[in-house]
Amino acid sequence: MKYEYLTNTPVAQAIGMLKEQLTANGFCYKTETVKTADSLHRVTATAVYAKRSSPHYCSSAMDGIAVLAENTFGASEANPVTLNSDQFVRVDTGDVIPSNADSVIMIENVIENKDGSVSIYAAAVPWQHIRQIGEDVSMGDMLAPSFTELTPSLIGAFMAGGVLSFEAVRRPVCAIIPTGDEIVSAETTLEDGDIPEYNSAIFSAMLKQWGADSIIYETVPDHIELLKKAVTDAAEKADCVLVIAGSSAGRDDYTATVLNECGSLVCHGVAMKPGKPTILGRIGNVPFFGLPGYPVSGITVMNTFVKPIIALLTKRILTELPTESAILSGKLISSLKYEESVRCRAAKIGDDFIAVPMRTSAGLVSGYSKSSALLNVAQNCEGYENESEIQIALRYPKWQLDTALMIVGSHDPLLDEVYDLMRKQENSCLVMSSHVGSMGGIMAVKRNQAHMGGIHLLDEESGIYNIPYLKKMFLTQKVYLIRGVGRLQGLIVKKGNPKNVTCLEQLSGGISYVNRQKGSGTRILLDYLLNRNHIDSSTIYGYEREEYTHTAVAAMVASDSADVGMGIYSAAKIYDLDFIPLWNEHYDLLVSENAFDQPYVKLFLDALRSHELKDRLTQLGGYTVDGIGEIINWSE
Amino acid sequence: MKYEYLTNTPVAQAIGMLKEQLTANGFCYKTETVKTADSLHRVTATAVYAKRSSPHYCSSAMDGIAVLAENTFGASEANPVTLNSDQFVRVDTGDVIPSNADSVIMIENVIENKDGSVSIYAAAVPWQHIRQIGEDVSMGDMLAPSFTELTPSLIGAFMAGGVLSFEAVRRPVCAIIPTGDEIVSAETTLEDGDIPEYNSAIFSAMLKQWGADSIIYETVPDHIELLKKAVTDAAEKADCVLVIAGSSAGRDDYTATVLNECGSLVCHGVAMKPGKPTILGRIGNVPFFGLPGYPVSGITVMNTFVKPIIALLTKRILTELPTESAILSGKLISSLKYEESVRCRAAKIGDDFIAVPMRTSAGLVSGYSKSSALLNVAQNCEGYENESEIQIALRYPKWQLDTALMIVGSHDPLLDEVYDLMRKQENSCLVMSSHVGSMGGIMAVKRNQAHMGGIHLLDEESGIYNIPYLKKMFLTQKVYLIRGVGRLQGLIVKKGNPKNVTCLEQLSGGISYVNRQKGSGTRILLDYLLNRNHIDSSTIYGYEREEYTHTAVAAMVASDSADVGMGIYSAAKIYDLDFIPLWNEHYDLLVSENAFDQPYVKLFLDALRSHELKDRLTQLGGYTVDGIGEIINWSE
Repeated sequence: MKYEYLTNTPVAQAIGMLKEQLTANGFCYKTETVKTADSLHRVTATAVYAKRSSPHYCSSAMDGIAVLAENTFGASEANPVTLNSDQFVRVDTGDVIPSNADSVIMIENVIENKDGSVSIYAAAVPWQHIRQIGEDVSMGDMLAPSFTELTPSLIGAFMAGGVLSFEAVRRPVCAIIPTGDEIVSAETTLEDGDIPEYNSAIFSAMLKQWGADSIIYETVPDHIELLKKAVTDAAEKADCVLVIAGSSAGRDDYTATVLNECGSLVCHGVAMKPGKPTILGRIGNVPFFGLPGYPVSGITVMNTFVKPIIALLTKRILTELPTESAILSGKLISSLKYEESVRCRAAKIGDDFIAVPMRTSAGLVSGYSKSSALLNVAQNCEGYENESEIQIALRYPKWQLDTALMIVGSHDPLLDEVYDLMRKQENSCLVMSSHVGSMGGIMAVKRNQAHMGGIHLLDEESGIYNIPYLKKMFLTQKVYLIRGVGRLQGLIVKKGNPKNVTCLEQLSGGISYVNRQKGSGTRILLDYLLNRNHIDSSTIYGYEREEYTHTAVAAMVASDSADVGMGIYSAAKIYDLDFIPLWNEHYDLLVSENAFDQPYVKLFLDALRSHELKDRLTQLGGYTVDGIGEIINWSE
Repeated sequence: MKYEYLTNTPVAQAIGMLKEQLTANGFCYKTETVKTADSLHRVTATAVYAKRSSPHYCSSAMDGIAVLAENTFGASEANPVTLNSDQFVRVDTGDVIPSNADSVIMIENVIENKDGSVSIYAAAVPWQHIRQIGEDVSMGDMLAPSFTELTPSLIGAFMAGGVLSFEAVRRPVCAIIPTGDEIVSAETTLEDGDIPEYNSAIFSAMLKQWGADSIIYETVPDHIELLKKAVTDAAEKADCVLVIAGSSAGRDDYTATVLNECGSLVCHGVAMKPGKPTILGRIGNVPFFGLPGYPVSGITVMNTFVKPIIALLTKRILTELPTESAILSGKLISSLKYEESVRCRAAKIGDDFIAVPMRTSAGLVSGYSKSSALLNVAQNCEGYENESEIQIALRYPKWQLDTALMIVGSHDPLLDEVYDLMRKQENSCLVMSSHVGSMGGIMAVKRNQAHMGGIHLLDEESGIYNIPYLKKMFLTQKVYLIRGVGRLQGLIVKKGNPKNVTCLEQLSGGISYVNRQKGSGTRILLDYLLNRNHIDSSTIYGYEREEYTHTAVAAMVASDSADVGMGIYSAAKIYDLDFIPLWNEHYDLLVSENAFDQPYVKLFLDALRSHELKDRLTQLGGYTVDGIGEIINWSE
């Protein structure tokens, strides 16, 4: 009795169906009484009226004397009027106006006489300098209509109007139920095959941003009855139920089955990427969501489907990310089958606001966290040509992206360390780094799609680093080359070197290798060295196996997934691996002409040239820093 | 020994002096270890590196079989390869790749044979469909540099990288010390002269928005030693000390004196309105602020001076309100002596984004809460001409102001009730109401500075309401007049009518009157009736005493501050006062031509015509609703 059904329902239709079914079944926010003093961001459930006036008495608006205005009529410079001590009362700002007075004269305009009387030189206008009852709020005035979010000043207005508590929309509580036999607590030591559970932390943080609380359940194994029990319990306790994973139609995917037994399934499968295996439904009038287990899919489903339902439960206006026009860097192909959400890096390059799509995979939550914008490609759109004008949703304020530094090229930990040092300056900025290899960096800077790129490209003929490439690629365009570091490349092997690797030739001897991606400087170096040593790459087991960073290569070796990889010394050191040095290379920085004078590049170069960085590089190991930060005169 | 000194230090200079003195004295944020799962909006105090790789093992990216690729080489449609049961392993997405396998074949491309073997029709490429170690995060990678605010996805990235807790910037704690003999708890029943304390609630909500916590002290009376004790205690316990009121240079203003004794005064008096009597200082390396007691002054000082210091303590980027160009409605004069913050209502009227300055007074916190934008007039600026292009800071997202309804004119509670009903619709909008009287409403609609206005203007010659004014004022311009309500105007007197008021003539008989402001329909009605009854307004005590709303007039009578005022029946009813009916008037709604088809006007008219509104008006009392919401054909 396994439910298996995956539709491809368009996003708007799916959310419409869910809202309609919920509304038809009495779905509604709840209310509770809250203390005004503690009600920031809470939402009024009804119109709120002032219970008292503010001020609630007529008070002096000045320091001075309270008088009956008619007693001062006729007073002038030539003809001052004298008031004796029972004709005036000394008042400070905020003091009560005595019942026999109707105006206040500022203390500066009062001459005190020795006998206790005062002289004044201008007639008082009745009710001058008196703060009237209700100047701010009058009893009975509506202070806020229904569904108004409390700001600090509105808290003040409520309290001024004597409203010390009020009926607010209750914060909804969402039950989050992780599922899966392979799921373990993120706190445990992980074995192979274990998947640590952290989706619940991501989703509960999102809910918190939207004004909702969460109850996180213990992970439920792939077992129908146990899941049914958890879901039933959650539907009783919570205002919304989220089940993580098991939302597809595979062997162990029970979410839809359980929903069909406990409640009503509205839609299984939506035309969205990532996030297709999504389940929408309800248990009575409690909304139910089955979310895919990959974190980026889950985040996308939360934003697309859960957020609008939470908005109905909180009655808050949950604003969308602001959108901006940008120029797409590169061609983007998308399917007509689904709506697609693409993570991008966005920054101002020269005069243009550029968006660079990121490597997408629903499992890359760290990639998502580093994205600065999202591009939504509609279901009926096949994608965009390179340099198309597109609309992107910004994850940072526009001004931060306009002043951000975009680095595209080969990666070295030095880039991260420089960024950290930049963050410690008062006028810091965002730095976005894409790791696409040295050639990718050169192309990005050349095409005005990046401010800067890390490169380490060996010219096989001359044996010179970087400069020959610039001479070839930048014939007319000006570009700066900044000296970075010398760094040691070599073979990374397990601790103690059990396979006894000493030279490149051994790679063809039945050893398992892990390579770097095409276009990366390390890959180019390997090919150069193989060539020089007359080694055929097809004899290397794992030559096709590609990783994107030095640390990922080291991680493969450390976990016994490969015997050897090529990378920099510091990566081997982090993983406590052995290292056979092969080559000393130059890792330099390319800076586009129009970026060179910008504050973000200056900040970068200051950090690059700092003593703190030299200390950190020594700590990392394998670097030489002679001339670091100098401008290399390459065009001669 | 009283300290008396008030400078007029420019704002930027004052904050610069404070920052300099603090920095020179070792002022710095503090840090603490926090759990990642609970760290939304927290800020990293150091760079954070991954402690493990994610995934930490090579896993299948598909449901299928894991094989050694070389066993499949040569497979084709014509020449399938058969693998026996020890040459493959069934794997699901996320499963561990066995050590003797190096690729995964999707289950869809596998034919299962009866003998337990499988046939495949295409060679597997080594490492296909395998999710490599570190695809998301590799151990040692920097996940975030110092001073990065945690987002939900970054929480995920940290946890994926095995970072379950990290060193974060500590939430600063601010001590808030209200002062003043006249200050009482907002919870108590107020006597004349009492001022309820709610500034602390406003300020602690602002601090919460900025990521800081508060300790609110009991109110300290105006007594130097007691204040000194509280301030000393606060400087020990908190990271920042705020003293409310007593910051000027009057008789009971001890804040500066106490600061001089306990710490160092940096600046007393800033060139800012509101907020001049501000004190900046420090006690050791703890920043100290003396804030003025008027709430709007306090809010302005919080935003201008406290916020940037909190940003240094939280290391968060506390963004400013976004600014937009707008057309100023009306002339605005400001002094060269100070920088001025002016509350505005802003909305899109026709094609223009219009800002209407609001009546300003540092005591009007409800007014501030209803403002939608702030205009900052620089110290060296004398103000702006009518229709100047100005930059305003928006308190709501631009799209909300672009779709907001701006009502300027005479006030009636019906406007608030309609707004409340509008809020209950799904596509609700903001409504901003300015109460400037009927004539003000006509002028605002005529000048394209409002969408709508409430009017009740009696033409003395014809005895007809509103239409004669439109015929005079809108000769060429088209405008809609919507029937509102008939409402009863009359004299509001104390319960039981102790002065035995029965007719208008008695107003000249030594009775105390409270009037409405010039240009208001009620004032015009009074003048008409006085004229018709040959009563000289100069014989009425209180004729010059002006209030802005019906409820404010009723509040004055209720509190014995006046014997009688003129207003509508519902205001008398709210205050449980007696009412002597004088006149039945037409309160109608003027709608500009370009607004009439807009969604916000449609929403308004739907609510105006609803049964719910009729019920509410019956509840309020004194209204007739025949033809409510009909379009009046006035131009014939």
